[in-house]
Formats: sequence, C-alpha cells, structure tokens
Amino acid sequence: MNNTRRLIADLLASADIQLNGNRPWDMQLHDDYFLTQVLSRGNLALGEAYMAGDWECEALDVFFCRILTHQLHTHVKPTRLLWHVLTSHLLNLQTPRRAWQVGFRHYDLGNQLYQAMLDERMVYTCGYWRHAQSLTDAQRDKLELVCQKLKLQPGMRVLDIGCGWGSFMKYAAEHYGVSCVGITVSQQQVELGQHMCAGLPIEFRLQDYRTLDESFDAVVSLGMFEHVGQRNYRRFMQVVAKCLKPRGLFLLHTIGRNRDSRGTDPWINRYIFPNGELPCLAHIDTASRDLLRAEDIENLSADYDPTLMAWYRNFDQAWPSLSHDYDETFYRMWRYYLLSCAGAFRARDLQVWQWVFSHPTDLGGYRRPLTRLSEVGE
Amino acid sequence: MNNTRRLIADLLASADIQLNGNRPWDMQLHDDYFLTQVLSRGNLALGEAYMAGDWECEALDVFFCRILTHQLHTHVKPTRLLWHVLTSHLLNLQTPRRAWQVGFRHYDLGNQLYQAMLDERMVYTCGYWRHAQSLTDAQRDKLELVCQKLKLQPGMRVLDIGCGWGSFMKYAAEHYGVSCVGITVSQQQVELGQHMCAGLPIEFRLQDYRTLDESFDAVVSLGMFEHVGQRNYRRFMQVVAKCLKPRGLFLLHTIGRNRDSRGTDPWINRYIFPNGELPCLAHIDTASRDLLRAEDIENLSADYDPTLMAWYRNFDQAWPSLSHDYDETFYRMWRYYLLSCAGAFRARDLQVWQWVFSHPTDLGGYRRPLTRLSEVGE
Repeated sequence: MNNTRRLIADLLASADIQLNGNRPWDMQLHDDYFLTQVLSRGNLALGEAYMAGDWECEALDVFFCRILTHQLHTHVKPTRLLWHVLTSHLLNLQTPRRAWQVGFRHYDLGNQLYQAMLDERMVYTCGYWRHAQSLTDAQRDKLELVCQKLKLQPGMRVLDIGCGWGSFMKYAAEHYGVSCVGITVSQQQVELGQHMCAGLPIEFRLQDYRTLDESFDAVVSLGMFEHVGQRNYRRFMQVVAKCLKPRGLFLLHTIGRNRDSRGTDPWINRYIFPNGELPCLAHIDTASRDLLRAEDIENLSADYDPTLMAWYRNFDQAWPSLSHDYDETFYRMWRYYLLSCAGAFRARDLQVWQWVFSHPTDLGGYRRPLTRLSEVGE
Repeated sequence: MNNTRRLIADLLASADIQLNGNRPWDMQLHDDYFLTQVLSRGNLALGEAYMAGDWECEALDVFFCRILTHQLHTHVKPTRLLWHVLTSHLLNLQTPRRAWQVGFRHYDLGNQLYQAMLDERMVYTCGYWRHAQSLTDAQRDKLELVCQKLKLQPGMRVLDIGCGWGSFMKYAAEHYGVSCVGITVSQQQVELGQHMCAGLPIEFRLQDYRTLDESFDAVVSLGMFEHVGQRNYRRFMQVVAKCLKPRGLFLLHTIGRNRDSRGTDPWINRYIFPNGELPCLAHIDTASRDLLRAEDIENLSADYDPTLMAWYRNFDQAWPSLSHDYDETFYRMWRYYLLSCAGAFRARDLQVWQWVFSHPTDLGGYRRPLTRLSEVGE
C-alpha cells in the first residue's frame, strides 16, 4: 500500500494536487484501501470511494480540471495508467433514451430534485453565457439562440426530440408563435411539462424517436443525442431527415468528445447516465451524410463549466430540504457528478456543439444569426 | 450512335435539359461522336468536347446545376452511369502546392489573367455576400470576417499558408496592425504580391508548408488546403500546431465535399488544378485530433456561386484584350471551369467551410464575431 500511495501521490503532485494538503483542490484521504483499485478500475473506484466518504475534496471541480489539463502521462511514465483511466472514463455524461428504464433511472429521479437544481424554466442542457450574468439569463439566451438559428416563423410546426420538461417548446411557442410536438422517455417529464406548458399549442408524447413518421417545419434536439449510441447515429439522422420538410432546418445540440472511440465511463454509466455515448465531429458528419447538409457548427463547451457550477450551487443550497428524500450517499454522488463534469468542461476535455443542418434539396444557403442576445431581453 | 444519343437525351430530359433545345441551359450539339465517350470517360470527355467546340451551352452554370440537383440516378436506372461520372468527377476544384510545377501550371498562367478576372485586391477564394452587392465588397467583407474570427490585435505576427498575391496579409496589416509571413509556391504571386504590398510589414516566401518551423500569434490558410491531399492532412495540421502559439487561433478556409472518397475530377485535374483533393468534415476532424480544437465552423458554399459568376463576367468582358495572349480553346476551357463550378456550388454539391481552431492548451473558449459587416465600411 505504501508503494501505491507513493505512486498516486507522485502522479497527483505533477498536477499540483497534494494528498492531505490544505488547498481546496487537494485530496483528503480518510482511508487508502481504494487507491490500488483506482489504478485498475479508474473513475469507478475513485467515484465509489468518494460516495462512501473515503476521501474528500472541497473543490472537486478544480481537482478534475487539474488532472485533465496537466496531462500527467506526458510527464511521468507510469502516470499513463492513472491518466488513462481518469480521462477515458470521464467522457460520457448524459442519459440514454434507448431503454425506457433509463428515463426512470435518471429523469424520473424526482422533479423536486431538478426543480431545485435547474433554472425556473428547467433547462437541463448547457446555457449560453456570452451576454448572461445568471443561470436564468444564460438559459433564456440559449433558447433564444436556438430559435434564431432555426429561423422560426409564426405558424411553424416544430419537433423536439428529447424535450425534457418542455422549456424549449414553451419559449418557442411564446416568443415565436410556433406549435410543437415533444417526445421524451420520462413519464415524470411529461406530467410536469404538460403542467408548465398548459394553454400553449404544445403536445408531449412518451415516444421513442425511431417511431416518428410525420412532417415538421423544423426539428430540434437538445442534449438527447448523448443517449442515442454510435450504433444508432445513422438511424437517428434518417428519422430526422424523414421528418424534416424540404425547407426545414435541424438543430442538434450535443456534448461531444475529441476521440473516435466507443464506450462510456463506468462510474457515470452505473450511477448517473446508463448507456450514454459521446460522438466526435466525424461521427456526426458520417451519420448525416447525404441525409442532411451541415451548415453551421458552434462549440459552446466553455459554457458548460458555469452552467454546472450554477446547478451545483442550487443543489447544495437546496440540500436541507432535499435531504428528507435523498440520503447522504446520494448527495455525495450528485456532487461528484456535477463537479467532475464541470472540471472536465473547464479543462475543455469535453465539447458541446450546436450543429445546424439544412435539407439537401434546399439550395438557398444558411446565414448564422448575428444578434447580440443582451439586446433581446424579454 | 442513335441508341447512345437517345439514352443521353432521356437522361438530360429528366433534368429538363434538351438536346438542341432553345433555352439557355439546353445542350447544342455540333457533333455527337463524343457522346459515347461521355458514358465511359465522364466529365473528361464532356469537357474536352466542349473545349473542341463540339457542343455549346449558353448557360453552362444552369446546365450543371440541373444535372446535379435532379439526381438523375434516382429516376432512371441507367443514368447511374452518367450521373456518377458527371458528379463524382466534378469534385476537385483547386490547385495542389505539393509539386512546385503546380504553381507554374495554374497560378503562373499569367498575372494578367487573374488581374482581369478577380477583384482589385486579387482575392482568389470564395467571397462573403451576406451584406455585399459587388465582388469588391464581398471580398472585403470576407477578409474582414476572417480578421474578426482570428481576433487579430495590433502587433501580432500572422502566418498565411498559401498567401496568393497577399490580399489577406495586406488587409490585415492595414486594418489590424499585424505583421505577416506568407508562403506560396508561385513565383509570379511573389513578384506581384511584393509589389502590391510594398511598404507594409509583409514577407513573401517561396516555401513548402512542410518546412515551416516558427512561432506565430495566428495562422490562416485560405483556399490552399484543397491542394494538400488526404495523405498529407495530418502533416499539415502538425505543422500548423507547431507554428501556433498557445493562445493563438487558426482559421482554415477550404472547399469540401460530402463524400469520404479519394480522387479528383480528371478534367479539372488535367486542365485546371493538377492533384487537388477535397476533404469532408470527418477528414478535417480526424487530421486535427489532439493537435487543434475545433471551435467554430461556417459553411459558405452558397457564396461561391455569385463569386464564380462575377469572375466569369470579368473574364468574359476582358477577353478582347486577353485574346492577344490566349487562344480560343483556352477561352472555352476557362469558361467551362468557372461555369461548371458555379453550377456545382449552386446545386450545393460542393461546400466551403471556415473552421476556427484554438490551441488545445487554451481553456478560455471561443466566441464567434457578431459584427454586421455592412456597418464596417472602409
């Protein structure tokens, strides 16, 4: 154990992290039995030990950002092992919708939890912080940006694949006069979403995207592609192409990574998002080939850090009341999830892309919106 | 021959093109010996027959746009043949720089030709027509857009890979106070470029990009990647990554296609741009992986149609004086080149991308410029 502990200490030191140091990002060991397992089981062992309270870190986000940016493997030979497990296993951060139980596992954790953590519109994707000072404004600006990119016009009928609690549909219906159909695999999202969107021309459906076969003027998918899986990317694009009218635009908002690899982080997979898988740009290009034309791609990954930190602050502040329904292990699990992801985005190890696609038969060309969103207001 | 002629007539009819019809985009046959060859040799036979004067078409651009948008192969079984040769062979439209004789073959055709055809800045890449009414304004707006995307600041040192006659470097030096190093493989570009940029902190070099080994605050490459070739994409990105300072941005402006294939159109290859090869998005993603981070991608392909049409009008108007140095076959070759490419871009069969990359160690995030260029003026 002494050897293992020394090895881990050396590795962390090269990212300026100390074992039992006194800075916020240092790692406080309450036990060290799990260190050997970290070398073989990576983030699964590290995360489980954190949940069990065997180690602590005040600034978990900084801890992970340092590990990812210091690229330990380039400095110390044996670090490859740790660096590999820590990074390659931190790369799948969202839920699958392929299996219905996944809606149950993550999105049906309780609307109470998400109402406490998210902004009041309940947008559960990366905000747009270019002109925003608060989570509320960042999410409003993101929804406005998406509406502008889609060139929405009154009377359009819009499909939202993975609609969550309907935040996009509500904003688009209220501000752009469109009607919407949203599909989700979470029963709880449908129930609360219908309540939040009452009186608007918005239809919620519990439906798998593969069963869609209707025409829409525009299609949007925000933070759902992470659950599709590489084997289904082509199928997903075929469904979108089938549903999109010839003059329509499709906006795909998804987390991505810079690696062309399969698989998912075992800790995230077991405790947060079962069956998620993150695409690289080439995957999306290949999957959409001859079906949709890529017109515009924006990388917003630096915006996910403040989004996740805002969610963490909301969650942490609401904990006294949430703690009636969730136990201490859940708190540590959720904290680990939000802060490790914030660190990964801060290190720019994960990406967030907004792709705009046009229909291949539309020859008009696409112009990105130039509006400064701070001027829009509400 | 009658059977072949009937087959060709049927194929063209499905794109509403008539043999010897009276609309501008109809095909006027002066001879029909070459039709059989078109079925086997595609655009090489079609283009050579055009150069020889065996057929004519007033609106060649519309002719090609119709062929590409009507996707003949989906309507008539045997059309696959023609459609395949016409489209798959129309996809490489720019010069290689790998071999020095290429600079000689295309860019050293005579500055007189390019001075007559291009705008007064001599920008030989796609313009930006969002706010522009003329070729001059479209090229100015394109250069301004590139400067803004690169976040240029006074005192920066900028590398231009494939600098042409220096239009970008001149604009950037005059409007953003930067100094520039530009490399090209054309002796004539260096000579005229040095004259046009006299008095500015701009250095022209006759140099292959693979021999670069210096540090720059920003790197730009406009319309040169088409000549790099798939086998060299990785090498190209390695050179850029090596030359880019940690806070620097790299803008790649290139024609692209939607297919992951090798090869080049034999007519274009033989008569216009030897050894060109067009990338797809996935190629660029793969080539840049772990070297550069993709931050922003804009598809400007609809802008190449008006650019090429403006070049054609300039060329056609200047022909009376150019005809002292070039023969009638050259006129027909150049007309075929400019108008067939205009048709391919109008059909959105070819793409034009501006990629902005950041250095992987730069964690700050990237914001696309929101300036309306019509407000900039000069």
